[in-house]
Amino acid sequence: MKDIEIVASARNIPEQVVTNDDLSQIMDTSDEWIKQRTGIKVRHISAGENTSDLAINVAKVLLKQVSWQADDLDLIIVATMSPDNMTPAVGAMVQGALGAKKAIAFDISAACSGFSYAISIAQDIMIANNFKNAMVIGAEVLSKLLDWQDRTTSVLFGDGAGGVLLRLSSTRHLLAKDLNTFGDLADNLVAGSIAVADSWQDNLHHISAFKMNGREVYRFATHNVPKSILSAAKKANISLDEIDHYLLHQANSRIITQVARKLKQPIEKFPVNISEYGNTAAASEAILLAECLENKVIKPGETIILSGFGGGLTTASLIYKF
Amino acid sequence: MKDIEIVASARNIPEQVVTNDDLSQIMDTSDEWIKQRTGIKVRHISAGENTSDLAINVAKVLLKQVSWQADDLDLIIVATMSPDNMTPAVGAMVQGALGAKKAIAFDISAACSGFSYAISIAQDIMIANNFKNAMVIGAEVLSKLLDWQDRTTSVLFGDGAGGVLLRLSSTRHLLAKDLNTFGDLADNLVAGSIAVADSWQDNLHHISAFKMNGREVYRFATHNVPKSILSAAKKANISLDEIDHYLLHQANSRIITQVARKLKQPIEKFPVNISEYGNTAAASEAILLAECLENKVIKPGETIILSGFGGGLTTASLIYKF
Repeated sequence: MKDIEIVASARNIPEQVVTNDDLSQIMDTSDEWIKQRTGIKVRHISAGENTSDLAINVAKVLLKQVSWQADDLDLIIVATMSPDNMTPAVGAMVQGALGAKKAIAFDISAACSGFSYAISIAQDIMIANNFKNAMVIGAEVLSKLLDWQDRTTSVLFGDGAGGVLLRLSSTRHLLAKDLNTFGDLADNLVAGSIAVADSWQDNLHHISAFKMNGREVYRFATHNVPKSILSAAKKANISLDEIDHYLLHQANSRIITQVARKLKQPIEKFPVNISEYGNTAAASEAILLAECLENKVIKPGETIILSGFGGGLTTASLIYKF
Repeated sequence: MKDIEIVASARNIPEQVVTNDDLSQIMDTSDEWIKQRTGIKVRHISAGENTSDLAINVAKVLLKQVSWQADDLDLIIVATMSPDNMTPAVGAMVQGALGAKKAIAFDISAACSGFSYAISIAQDIMIANNFKNAMVIGAEVLSKLLDWQDRTTSVLFGDGAGGVLLRLSSTRHLLAKDLNTFGDLADNLVAGSIAVADSWQDNLHHISAFKMNGREVYRFATHNVPKSILSAAKKANISLDEIDHYLLHQANSRIITQVARKLKQPIEKFPVNISEYGNTAAASEAILLAECLENKVIKPGETIILSGFGGGLTTASLIYKF
């Protein structure tokens, strides 16, 4: 039986820090208000870097870590909801920048669940095609899609990228996956709408900012993330206590607290970095995973769950044993 | 051994027709010029329909054809480079509109190769997860990304959608696939660039139009499409003569003529509908396939190749036996 194994992880964050106080200079908000409701203290915002710049940096660091050559890669998937362009895909740009000529590359769009979706898809493609080595990156420059006049959404998001290298393995690591889509709830989180003209001769070329029904998304997440985690644990045939770390998408610290409470798991098992980055959508779990491995929060032999949720609406939980 | 089988196909095209003469009213071009260089006579342009509208229509027609219920679907993949939004994915919107609650849904971005990429990815996911039924749609409202002042690109593209239903099968149908990405050539075809601000407080919200190095894309396609077709035929262990129909991405009739010539295959084996639709990117092969099945150009037992190429740059060839 074949599976995949995570052999490297990395992250790249824009240097420019925007604090809650910075935001309070341009809109009616405050550090206190944002911190209390979201857990966010600062976020990193692109000073001109695009999504591919962040992704390519991650990609190069990843290859270096394990001394792979670009030609070793068979597959590159980038999860993003803020690509540089509608074409080429960010994945293709990464492939080109690395010179990974053998690799098939494309992007997937599944918002904040994108990183977990992409790892799941990579596993299926690698096993089906006997691809030995793959790269999965979550990368976002969400600031392109923010309206700095809208204090209900712009304070929540940040820019960044993270990723992993995957290798085909004869040992079981990805114990279970549970992916879900809730398209009937799609309207609760909409971002980056590309305007359609009524009259064909019009050039609109406008892409709109985030629109979010925060209350509904909160309700959705606190109900469906525990459900997805329980479903994944059941598929893996393990108890919640056997999961050492719960790496949730970093959308809001209150969602994380509530999920921990519902699952009756100690909050210490839920690493949190939202205070530093805000919500980085498809990059969020990738950045958190890279940090937890870097800081040895996750130790060899431990079992984690990656649990994404957000636009679509979607949820995606992967149970992985290191 | 498991494989996938195409059990239905459908297409949906906006009603509004824009002729070459219409274009010559607003830019310095002519019917003669466009026809000679591209083979395009008219294209269909959205009169307000968005990508999800076209895709949802295709999805409903598909289910009706085989009397499937929405709940029968395990997977929905939409290939698009002109989604309604950066989130939710068009796939999620289709899932929601159908009420296909069991289906995982997401979008992939691989431009004009997207439909072939998506079928290949669907095959891998279906087999790996034992998903019985899937839907793959290519859908575009490229007119959102056109600059009607730029006669070098805006005359080339059109809007539309097409798709297929896939069923897990014990008979071999997808005889071979050959997917490639050429990220080093990414700059030759760029569309829908989302502007990044230098100063974080700026709201740009601008998405740009197509920029294409037509000569390079022509050179790329006429060299790499035959190469990909030959590679797929080799993998399938069949000769080119055994392929009954060559369904190429409809980018330019001169590319199709040139590919036929290079492969020494009769031009009659290459169905063409570009005169009616222009280049519809990820929708192009799906629309052509649906038409060829509708009109019984493709007969039971025949072998076809679907060969996409374009932004990325990418190529993707699938050999399929009906």
